[in-house]
Amino acid sequence: MESSCDPVKTRALNNIRIVLVRPIYGGNVGSVCRAMANMGLSDLALAGAAPSIDFQDARKMACWAGSILEQRRDTATLAEAVSDCAVVMGATARLGLYRQHSQSPRACAPRILETAQTGKVALVFGPEDNGLSNEELEFCTHLVQIPSSDNYRSLNLSHAVMICAYELFVASELFVPAQEKSPEAPSAMKERLFAMWEQALLEIGFMEDDKAQHMMLGVRRIFSRGQLTEDDVRILMGIARQTRWCATQAQGRPGGQGS
Amino acid sequence: MESSCDPVKTRALNNIRIVLVRPIYGGNVGSVCRAMANMGLSDLALAGAAPSIDFQDARKMACWAGSILEQRRDTATLAEAVSDCAVVMGATARLGLYRQHSQSPRACAPRILETAQTGKVALVFGPEDNGLSNEELEFCTHLVQIPSSDNYRSLNLSHAVMICAYELFVASELFVPAQEKSPEAPSAMKERLFAMWEQALLEIGFMEDDKAQHMMLGVRRIFSRGQLTEDDVRILMGIARQTRWCATQAQGRPGGQGS
Repeated sequence: MESSCDPVKTRALNNIRIVLVRPIYGGNVGSVCRAMANMGLSDLALAGAAPSIDFQDARKMACWAGSILEQRRDTATLAEAVSDCAVVMGATARLGLYRQHSQSPRACAPRILETAQTGKVALVFGPEDNGLSNEELEFCTHLVQIPSSDNYRSLNLSHAVMICAYELFVASELFVPAQEKSPEAPSAMKERLFAMWEQALLEIGFMEDDKAQHMMLGVRRIFSRGQLTEDDVRILMGIARQTRWCATQAQGRPGGQGS
Repeated sequence: MESSCDPVKTRALNNIRIVLVRPIYGGNVGSVCRAMANMGLSDLALAGAAPSIDFQDARKMACWAGSILEQRRDTATLAEAVSDCAVVMGATARLGLYRQHSQSPRACAPRILETAQTGKVALVFGPEDNGLSNEELEFCTHLVQIPSSDNYRSLNLSHAVMICAYELFVASELFVPAQEKSPEAPSAMKERLFAMWEQALLEIGFMEDDKAQHMMLGVRRIFSRGQLTEDDVRILMGIARQTRWCATQAQGRPGGQGS
């Protein structure tokens, strides 16, 4: 569960700029900062932000990602915000003449990361109410469309940024997922387990000798439904061992099986 | 860009319940509703929600997904909220004894959808401040960990729900991505294009006969960097045609090439 420290991949994420065009709500801007920090991004530009934007809300929603908010660049236009970017990827939820050649965030992530190894890439998101205008889409070398339900296509601004940033972070392979510390148990170890359970189930009187093979098929099936690690098998062997000890004790008592 | 109407896949999404345990902020609950609607989910449960929760904030952030908020189930405990669920998947950002066997949202999506074809599945998210407790994790048959940066692991609640819901929606294949209407141009069509450009570039005097083959290698390379559709090739043929017409006109004028 550690991140790798690959400097090339880290540089690629550093070269990706999130551009919010004419954002309206400070809370969304702050939520975007937090999403960026969660996914290893840090370069934020606001192009033509509404003068009424509430930066106190933004700071509140940014939580521990306030530095991204403080270090953002403010530009008057989209053209200024993306002038140094080789790839300008515009997010769009709608269809239309200008929007036919859109790709999914997953499909375009490798292309973005490849370009970002050497140059700047902008990911551009329109305002909360209407998205990017056709004039703004002309600046975009590529379009990205986030998969969403026909019944409600329009995502919250920070949710749209989060999905794109998440796909880039996953594609960067900087995140190393959790690994089971105990390996999956090999066949011979599982066979020893089944032999111990068979003995235990006979000794407690759960099954008779002539039914044992049939019953054990059911037990084998239950324990084969998911992966069993060596740790899992050791727990189950311990249960069999203790069950057999208990059966021996019971046989020695009045009213016990063997009395 | 249409969603498919596969009834089995739609039923699977209908069988997935988002459970928020002890949520604190109404705004987050509303944002979760919107994220769910965006990704085709509709079953929301709040387990032990804070009495102080601001449902006006929730309604505001839910936007057009208010019906999910209204139709939610409120339970006192997590146990009640998941009692009818075959798979209970708990989201966790932290490590520890109880959290080793976590999977990524992408890795566990197929398993969730498979179970959800016949039974209920719960996706469980802890409160904004501390996540799920160890006692609550005991109810979870599986754990999911969202990839995030070592520098800032903790996601906003609605962002965490959005990423899980997005992975399920993508895995359901209910979303059919945009398709280029024009197919990629076949070789013979591209060769006709290059022949027309060669003629035009000779006629405007951009290159001499003996350099033509070499220059055309550069032109071929430029037009081969990305896919060219048949529509693209028709535009580029039109440019060559008009260029040749223009060159002919220039030759007839005083001061023109041919004069």
